[in-house]
Amino acid sequence: MKIKFTKMHGLGNDFVVIDGINQAISLTPENIRWLADRHFGVGCDQVLLVEKATNNADFRYRIFNADGGEVEQCGNGARCFVRFVYDHSLTKKKEIRVETASGLIFPRLESDGEVTVNMGIPTFEPADIPFLAEKHDLTYTLDINNKQIEISVVSIGNPHAVQIVSDIEDAAVSTEGRLIESHPRFPQRVNAGFMQIIDPHHIKLRVYERGAGETLACGTGACAAVITGIARGLLASKVKVSTHGGNLWVQWEGKNQPVFMTGPAVTVFEGVTELSPNEHRNEK
Amino acid sequence: MKIKFTKMHGLGNDFVVIDGINQAISLTPENIRWLADRHFGVGCDQVLLVEKATNNADFRYRIFNADGGEVEQCGNGARCFVRFVYDHSLTKKKEIRVETASGLIFPRLESDGEVTVNMGIPTFEPADIPFLAEKHDLTYTLDINNKQIEISVVSIGNPHAVQIVSDIEDAAVSTEGRLIESHPRFPQRVNAGFMQIIDPHHIKLRVYERGAGETLACGTGACAAVITGIARGLLASKVKVSTHGGNLWVQWEGKNQPVFMTGPAVTVFEGVTELSPNEHRNEK
Repeated sequence: MKIKFTKMHGLGNDFVVIDGINQAISLTPENIRWLADRHFGVGCDQVLLVEKATNNADFRYRIFNADGGEVEQCGNGARCFVRFVYDHSLTKKKEIRVETASGLIFPRLESDGEVTVNMGIPTFEPADIPFLAEKHDLTYTLDINNKQIEISVVSIGNPHAVQIVSDIEDAAVSTEGRLIESHPRFPQRVNAGFMQIIDPHHIKLRVYERGAGETLACGTGACAAVITGIARGLLASKVKVSTHGGNLWVQWEGKNQPVFMTGPAVTVFEGVTELSPNEHRNEK
Repeated sequence: MKIKFTKMHGLGNDFVVIDGINQAISLTPENIRWLADRHFGVGCDQVLLVEKATNNADFRYRIFNADGGEVEQCGNGARCFVRFVYDHSLTKKKEIRVETASGLIFPRLESDGEVTVNMGIPTFEPADIPFLAEKHDLTYTLDINNKQIEISVVSIGNPHAVQIVSDIEDAAVSTEGRLIESHPRFPQRVNAGFMQIIDPHHIKLRVYERGAGETLACGTGACAAVITGIARGLLASKVKVSTHGGNLWVQWEGKNQPVFMTGPAVTVFEGVTELSPNEHRNEK
């Protein structure tokens, strides 16, 4: 089956975005893995599928990781999603109600082409993340590789464990990130953030994303880092987040308030492909 | 400027292929680096540009590495090139005369869709590779990292240094490959091959490609490995080459004969993009 898609990125976190409204799309996990494959397929961190809303929203949007699994939320993806539906004339609105697997989000296309996403109200409740802990606390101690690390946990639709490091470039993101991701205290696994605080208005961040490994920039990871930093009294209410892919801005006014994230969303190319992976890998 | 391109791969060695005959294309090194960038751009190992022949050939074809530099020859690319010009109706011939930076090649589209490329007559002359050595020999000793390794050298349009290893999966391809690539005895750098001989009809191969690092499969590297193995009396005249990307077949009848390589070439998708990299990376 021939499908049209658009390759986009937000700070180098890259997406294959597919219009599932004007095309009849049914993606198997094998399709997803092929779309994400950077040598044999199209290549991306995640596949975003735009669908008709099933309730009182403008669109429904689904997110699949490179491993084929569906995830709840992706901040960089949400920005690309907004540019996609606007640029492809699926809507004329600049403020959009979007249904995701983790609830409604309300992204807004800014006049400079960047996108602000209301990422909803974060929750720190261990049971909501889910994280196995006896009570809610600002920080927890996690045993990793016979070492104890101090983390904060929060859910922005998806679960995050954030730790503060002295130098982001020295952080063991790939090795330690993998161990945190699959730590038994996170029954649905977790995204592992490593944050270096430059000053109360500026952090540097690297994230090991659940199911994807380290990516250039993780939008919900940026929100999680800033929120936990604010909750701990270490950051101001609006913070610049520098990642290997570029800069984001995260704003949060405190408990029971939604978190806002602003950043770029870029269209790289428009593509057409035959969605039949087996034809693409003709080994003998 | 909007351009059309096709994403293809040969054994996972992947290419952005551009029709420079029906489109007025002028690629800067910055354009190439952006096209090759897997997160901010299209993503590929090499960019292939199809042009009108300047002499008595059907086409001219130019190859650019991910670092923006132009190279002479790429075996997997040659196969994709043939599928591209045939599938896009630039020719009805199945045997094509192609002008490359290293001379003419004569690829043939087989009935099963695989492509055989006459890669020309290899040369072992050190000066032609170029390799700094006092005389032509079957093997040479190279000092790498205070260690002496035994290599054979050959040019298939581009320079190769091949060594035999006992287990391909244990070979230090990325670290040692990089040192061989830029060894001072190779004034124009070199592709570094690591070959494990299974039997005289079958080898396993990994290659550190000049300017690209390790790739899933290197076509000229497969030829180089088999040719040096035949020259040393270790391999038969037709050999199956297993790479991480899949299998190739290389045939060589000996000195002063051309080398033939047969393998797959696959179209992944058709794309359209705006060739202005600065618009794609809007960091603040």
